[in-house]
Amino acid sequence: MCQLLGLNCKNPTDATFSFSGFAQRAGVTDHHADGWGIAFFEGSEQDRGLRHFIDHLPASTSPVAELIRKYPIKSRNVISHIRKATQGVVALENCHPFVRELWGRYWVFAHNGNLENYEPRLHGNFKPVGHTDSEQAFCWLMQEMAKSHASVPSVDELTLTLKELVPQIAKHGTFNFLLSNGQALWAHASTNLCYIERKHPFAKATLSDQDMSINFAEHASPDDRVAVVVTAPLTTNEVWTPFAPGELKVFVDGQLRA
Amino acid sequence: MCQLLGLNCKNPTDATFSFSGFAQRAGVTDHHADGWGIAFFEGSEQDRGLRHFIDHLPASTSPVAELIRKYPIKSRNVISHIRKATQGVVALENCHPFVRELWGRYWVFAHNGNLENYEPRLHGNFKPVGHTDSEQAFCWLMQEMAKSHASVPSVDELTLTLKELVPQIAKHGTFNFLLSNGQALWAHASTNLCYIERKHPFAKATLSDQDMSINFAEHASPDDRVAVVVTAPLTTNEVWTPFAPGELKVFVDGQLRA
Repeated sequence: MCQLLGLNCKNPTDATFSFSGFAQRAGVTDHHADGWGIAFFEGSEQDRGLRHFIDHLPASTSPVAELIRKYPIKSRNVISHIRKATQGVVALENCHPFVRELWGRYWVFAHNGNLENYEPRLHGNFKPVGHTDSEQAFCWLMQEMAKSHASVPSVDELTLTLKELVPQIAKHGTFNFLLSNGQALWAHASTNLCYIERKHPFAKATLSDQDMSINFAEHASPDDRVAVVVTAPLTTNEVWTPFAPGELKVFVDGQLRA
Repeated sequence: MCQLLGLNCKNPTDATFSFSGFAQRAGVTDHHADGWGIAFFEGSEQDRGLRHFIDHLPASTSPVAELIRKYPIKSRNVISHIRKATQGVVALENCHPFVRELWGRYWVFAHNGNLENYEPRLHGNFKPVGHTDSEQAFCWLMQEMAKSHASVPSVDELTLTLKELVPQIAKHGTFNFLLSNGQALWAHASTNLCYIERKHPFAKATLSDQDMSINFAEHASPDDRVAVVVTAPLTTNEVWTPFAPGELKVFVDGQLRA
C-alpha cells in the first residue's frame, strides 16, 4: 500500500509544510520507501503548466525531495505519492503520479491500493509505460474519458463521468486515488482517505510525523482557502473528515464542491 | 532562438559536466533566460522511466538547475533546452522539453528555431498544452508517427518515417530539434547543431562557458561511449562536427548510426 497527498487551493500555495510531514512516512515514521513523486500545476494561463518530480529513492532521503522541501513552488493543485510496492518493481517507470495529456491539458493521477486480476482492455491512445495496476487503471480512465467528451468538460460534467467509470475499476480491489487537471482535484476512497479545509480564521497546525508546527494565521491571507486530502491525517490538532467507502469528492478553489 | 543539448550514451552517464556549461548560456554567457528544461530516461527495463524537470526561471539561477548540477542522475538519453522566447510567453507550459506517451513509451522533444505561419492540422490524439510553434510541431510528429506504425518501430524504421515527416515541418522555418524515446537520440538541423563522440582513449575537456575542465580518462571506463549533440560547441579543445542543413542523424549506444 502507498500513501497519497493532494492539495487544492484558491490561491497558489506552497506545499512545503504538508510535504515535509508526508515525506517522513517514506521510511522514517512509516515504511513507504519504494519511490515517490509529486506534481504541481502552475502556469501563466489557467494553471496549464506542470512540474513533475519522481524519484525511486525514499522521499525521506531523496535529493529531489530535499529540493521540494526547500523550494516553495506555489500551486493551486498538487498531487504527491509515496510508494510501497505491491505490483511492479521499484523503478522510475512505476513511480506515481503518472501524467498524460488529453484535450490539450495535462492530467495527473496517483493511486493507493491494489487491484487484483485487473486487465482492462486498452484499445485507445493511452498505454502504460511501467508495470503497475495503477497506471493501467489511469490509462483506462483516460481512454474512457476521451470517449465520453470531445473536449475538456466542465468539472461537474467530468465528475458525473467519473462516477460511472470509477466503480468499474473499484470492484477489482482497493482504489483510493487522486486526479487533477489543474482545474480541480478529484479524490476517491475505497478505504483510507480524509480531508480538511483550511480557511480564515487560520490557526496553528502541528504535524503528526515530524516535530514541526506552523501558525497559518501568520502566513495566510484572509482570502486564502486550502483543501488537503491525505491517506491518514497529517496533523494532530485539526479535525480531519474521513471519506466514506466508495465516495468520490471534488475540490475546487480550496473547498469541497457540493 | 533557444539552445539544445542532447546526450546519448552506451552506459548510464551523468550529464553534470555538460549541463554546467550549457546552463551558463541562460543569462551568463548568453541570453537564453526564458526558462529551461531537462529530461533523463532511466528505469529498470530498457530505460522506460523518465525524469522531467522544467523551470520558468533562468537555468543559471534556478534552484532546480542547481539540483541537476549537484545530483548526478545517470542516464543513457538526456535532452535539455534553454529558452529564448520567440512564440508563447515565458511560462511553465511553454518550457521544453515536451513529453508525450505513445505505444507505452515516453517521447521527449525539444526545438530550437522558429516556424512561421505554422498551423498543422491536429486531428489526432496529441494536442498542445502551451502556445509554442514547437509543441505544435511535436504534436503533429507524434500524430503522424502514430499513423505510420502500430507499435514502437525499430530505430531504423522510425528514422525512415522521420525523414519523410520532418521536411514537411522544416519548410516552415528553422527546425533544429532533438527527440528521444530512451532507445535512441534523433537530431535534426536546419541551421545550428554539432556533435562529438567521446570514447576510449578519453581525454581532458575544457568548457567554453565556464572555467571548468574534466579529465574523462579519470572518470570513464574503456567501455564507455558518449555522443553529445549541442547548438554550439560546449568545449574549446575538442573537435565538434557540424550538421549539414536538413540533416537528420540518429545516435544509439553513444555513437552515430550509419
